[in-house]
Amino acid sequence: MITASICTIGDEILIGQIVDTNSSAIARELQTIGVKVRYMLSIGDDRQEILQNLQLCLDETDIVIVTGGLGPTRDDITKDALRELSGSALYREDATQMEINERILSARHIPMLETNRAQALVPERCEVLPNELGTAPGMCFTGLGKSGKSVLYSIPGVPFEAIGLLPKVVASIKSRFPLEEISHRTILTFGIPESELAERIRDWEDALPASMHLAYLPNPTLGVRLRLTQVGGHTDFEPQVTELKQLLGNAVYGEGEDSLQHCIGQLLLKQGKTVCAAESCTGGRISALFTSVSGCSAYYMGSVTSYANEVKMGVLGVKEATLKAHGAVSEETVREMAAGVLQKLNTDYSVVTSGIAGPTGGTPEKPVGMAWLATAYRNEKGEISVTTKKVQFRSSREINIERFASSAINLLRLKILGAL
Amino acid sequence: MITASICTIGDEILIGQIVDTNSSAIARELQTIGVKVRYMLSIGDDRQEILQNLQLCLDETDIVIVTGGLGPTRDDITKDALRELSGSALYREDATQMEINERILSARHIPMLETNRAQALVPERCEVLPNELGTAPGMCFTGLGKSGKSVLYSIPGVPFEAIGLLPKVVASIKSRFPLEEISHRTILTFGIPESELAERIRDWEDALPASMHLAYLPNPTLGVRLRLTQVGGHTDFEPQVTELKQLLGNAVYGEGEDSLQHCIGQLLLKQGKTVCAAESCTGGRISALFTSVSGCSAYYMGSVTSYANEVKMGVLGVKEATLKAHGAVSEETVREMAAGVLQKLNTDYSVVTSGIAGPTGGTPEKPVGMAWLATAYRNEKGEISVTTKKVQFRSSREINIERFASSAINLLRLKILGAL
Repeated sequence: MITASICTIGDEILIGQIVDTNSSAIARELQTIGVKVRYMLSIGDDRQEILQNLQLCLDETDIVIVTGGLGPTRDDITKDALRELSGSALYREDATQMEINERILSARHIPMLETNRAQALVPERCEVLPNELGTAPGMCFTGLGKSGKSVLYSIPGVPFEAIGLLPKVVASIKSRFPLEEISHRTILTFGIPESELAERIRDWEDALPASMHLAYLPNPTLGVRLRLTQVGGHTDFEPQVTELKQLLGNAVYGEGEDSLQHCIGQLLLKQGKTVCAAESCTGGRISALFTSVSGCSAYYMGSVTSYANEVKMGVLGVKEATLKAHGAVSEETVREMAAGVLQKLNTDYSVVTSGIAGPTGGTPEKPVGMAWLATAYRNEKGEISVTTKKVQFRSSREINIERFASSAINLLRLKILGAL
Repeated sequence: MITASICTIGDEILIGQIVDTNSSAIARELQTIGVKVRYMLSIGDDRQEILQNLQLCLDETDIVIVTGGLGPTRDDITKDALRELSGSALYREDATQMEINERILSARHIPMLETNRAQALVPERCEVLPNELGTAPGMCFTGLGKSGKSVLYSIPGVPFEAIGLLPKVVASIKSRFPLEEISHRTILTFGIPESELAERIRDWEDALPASMHLAYLPNPTLGVRLRLTQVGGHTDFEPQVTELKQLLGNAVYGEGEDSLQHCIGQLLLKQGKTVCAAESCTGGRISALFTSVSGCSAYYMGSVTSYANEVKMGVLGVKEATLKAHGAVSEETVREMAAGVLQKLNTDYSVVTSGIAGPTGGTPEKPVGMAWLATAYRNEKGEISVTTKKVQFRSSREINIERFASSAINLLRLKILGAL
């Protein structure tokens, strides 16, 4: 199997100032095309460390992907180490990148300074992968390592530039290495815990053909993703996926890179319906999920974060008697919140939370991690039906909030599907 | 200077399924006590890779911190590699960890199975750092590497367990290595771009004593943090900090690990005042910031996300004529939103956003990345004063939203301070 190392360069990672998210984005891409990542390595802006460690990686793996170290104020260290490593004597100016840089700078009304010009210089023995999103190009160096066949890719460290260049890196890898054909299909589920899911699909999993492999990828916001993989030219997943969807029914909400909030948006667009939210313990998280989808204004009207009981009563119309008798975290309160916000914001659907995120607070009956969720629908006759659900998690404040929010919008999804 | 490597073990990192946040948390701690991190490395659950790479790290650095590879289903690979590396023939059961594990399992009503029992087994030549938050203990192995003086710490990969054990690791490092005494003081600023800040404090920076070093740490949510460091027993920052605060005035909002939302909460508590928010382009982010502070219900009443113009009018009382004449993204609209939400939610202060987060949309006059912010205050006589501000950023949708939200609550902070 073709192997790779991913190497990030930059003191800001080693002092813990920024978290390296590039490496995992690159790893996911490589995994998809059947390249095995053996190492991820972070080193500082130090010429000797760079030379020594990149050489080690090139000796050990077929592909080395380097990110970072190319900013306008310090490109000399990494780029010059790459020049030496690639056996280049000189630099050349890359015309394509120079053109892009002139375009970028003039759009930002920034004059072309010597430091900007230097960004388009590359070691002469290098193939350029032009970077449309920034001024430092991607570079590909070949014929390296003790095998004489290893390839090094250098891409900028700025995350959106690195991600933007990945398709070019992947295309280059595919053209240079004999990769085993590999296909994936990922089925997204929500609402069934991983262990229960495994139980429910055990017979199906046991009956998978030998060429097919299943992985469980759990995530508090996305639910449990089931990724099927086949190697060696097998690309048909249809019979297995059809059967899996039958087994799991409404727990399946989408495929691939989709999200709950995006799927819900698509369902609402199809029905021509609108939604709003009233949030207590999730404190704006549900609204942030909805508005993370570009174009959500077609179906998402807004929300009320009713942190204080006065807001629950004054804006959402929750009765004081209900709050007194049952408390803010109760089925009765979320029922009234769901109907109230739907009427106030005049939507077809609503989704609601009230719970105890922690880390402190709560009582034996209403412990930290407990929440009541609700979703309401108003039909053409103006009749409102509300569905509620109680959940109990045992995570940190932050993860509890994330799971309350995702569970609530999943309840909304089931309501839209008519399953509640 | 004492050097360290941080090594994470686990296939889930190499396939990009999870982002490694432990390494940067550990790096920040080590940086604080004057240990220089030379490498961060991620490798898979493979005995040979583990043995070979940990040996390399032990040969190259004084300290190696290993996270991960200790789950109940796979602890055999990493732990047994550590047993071999440390020259231990056998395992022993650690009584302290066993006691903790019995307590944890019985609290969760889980029977003690063989896999749980195995978690308290450690290589005999190891010092245990008991883990109160999980069943796998931290371990310390000494006398390793080619120097015969390197030390390896193994801690679990679950982030809150890893963070929980860090103080014990730090204490152990301090007791074993002659660290240069190092002191930090971090001043938090918001609202002045990094380049302008550097200009404004240049003379002050040039006059710093030779023992003192300054670092700029910019962050879209936290602003620019200025970290002062002194080594070798110098611990007095007072004269420099006092002068810096005079130079920067209200741009300084706090120190150390503080956040804008927490500082604002403290100011409101002191004044006995309350706040609410009305969000358009930030879609719930401001509310999520406020509610990330445990105990915020003492001053934070709630918010309205008025994504749709109908909500701006129906809930917040923005005039239709205003929206028609000036649009939703306008100074006039945010003024009405700020006064409207303050009255609706009956608070002393309000904070408001309306802008274009992108990635598409916008016009030449109102481009992507532009937003109007507002903050309002109602005094004892019931008079409402509103302050507005226009901002323009050039980031992704996600970062634009983050910067709109932080800039808006900073405007609120200045209003509370009476600076507007």
